[in-house]
Amino acid sequence: MFNKKAYVLYSGGKDSSLMAIILNRMGFDVELVTANFGVYESFIPASKSAKSLNMKHKVLKLDKEIIETAVDIILNLGFPNNGINYLHKAVIEELADLAIQNDFPTIADGTRRDDKTPKLDKNEIRSLEDRKEIQYINLDSFGYKTIENLASSLFEINKEESNRDNNSDYEVEIRYLLDNEMNIDSSELFPKHYQTRVVGFKN
Amino acid sequence: MFNKKAYVLYSGGKDSSLMAIILNRMGFDVELVTANFGVYESFIPASKSAKSLNMKHKVLKLDKEIIETAVDIILNLGFPNNGINYLHKAVIEELADLAIQNDFPTIADGTRRDDKTPKLDKNEIRSLEDRKEIQYINLDSFGYKTIENLASSLFEINKEESNRDNNSDYEVEIRYLLDNEMNIDSSELFPKHYQTRVVGFKN
Repeated sequence: MFNKKAYVLYSGGKDSSLMAIILNRMGFDVELVTANFGVYESFIPASKSAKSLNMKHKVLKLDKEIIETAVDIILNLGFPNNGINYLHKAVIEELADLAIQNDFPTIADGTRRDDKTPKLDKNEIRSLEDRKEIQYINLDSFGYKTIENLASSLFEINKEESNRDNNSDYEVEIRYLLDNEMNIDSSELFPKHYQTRVVGFKN
Repeated sequence: MFNKKAYVLYSGGKDSSLMAIILNRMGFDVELVTANFGVYESFIPASKSAKSLNMKHKVLKLDKEIIETAVDIILNLGFPNNGINYLHKAVIEELADLAIQNDFPTIADGTRRDDKTPKLDKNEIRSLEDRKEIQYINLDSFGYKTIENLASSLFEINKEESNRDNNSDYEVEIRYLLDNEMNIDSSELFPKHYQTRVVGFKN
């Protein structure tokens, strides 16, 4: 039997929740991990979601410098995609290092086939797996509609306007940095949107 | 609850077997389907594998013309990849039509992230899903090593030198056509290789 320990990068959303459940059902021993850069305690919603699914959860504390660089990229370009993509790649690298340290041979995230960003492309995945001698899994097998169907059949989901205390996306700490430490109004870069968070299993 | 009927294109190999089991564990009602072009009864090994996994299995009978075109492509180019890729795409189109007919909203195959051929790329997948109003799933989430690990932890697998009666790959009917109907020695186009076939669940 191979070592089935897997870290799943976790936001509390339906994609990363679904990734965790798929691995769980395939026999992996899953632990959820949410990245935090010490800017704002944005991991709390994800930790609540993890608890509602009875899954182990930990916070991966990372250097503030990483998110500051992401903010620089976003401000220089005038839109968030590339900065968020950079951030995701940096987080995955750190997650891989944590995995190696703790003898978890597999890491995963909830990025899906129809996502554009944040996302590792095939070459980045191969490079990661080769450099770190680790296995990486995402939701590339599945399209948008399949994921909606599976998630809504599995999970109780709360939907509300996104704010900094109801989700654990990278956006929360990025916006906090902009608004509260740099005095730059983040609302022009990040338009209002609705946020879904997993709050338990459906019965 | 959504309609969870899914057809999985099935060869009896570990990839398509794993695809079937993943869908099964996610609650899909899976039926395995093996394509046949009326050239040789190459579906028999797949039907045995399906039985060993206690899964429903059917044969999708397709026009011989399709495989004849694949053979033309192979002979014109002097190597099999493009012909086999063409064949796979034609089979997926027919599988989608069968799925629509029988009210199966999902089809799947065992192609994986590190496969080159046969394989649908992202644009082909989107086109298929849009044209047929169907959902398509494959093993793109997973790398080579993860699949090896999962398959060998789940399945009893027989490994032997490939011949026309121990596997249900497209190759079997293509070679039969070449060797027995066209008098062209297929062994130069298809080098000897080892074949793995699922023969049951591991205990």
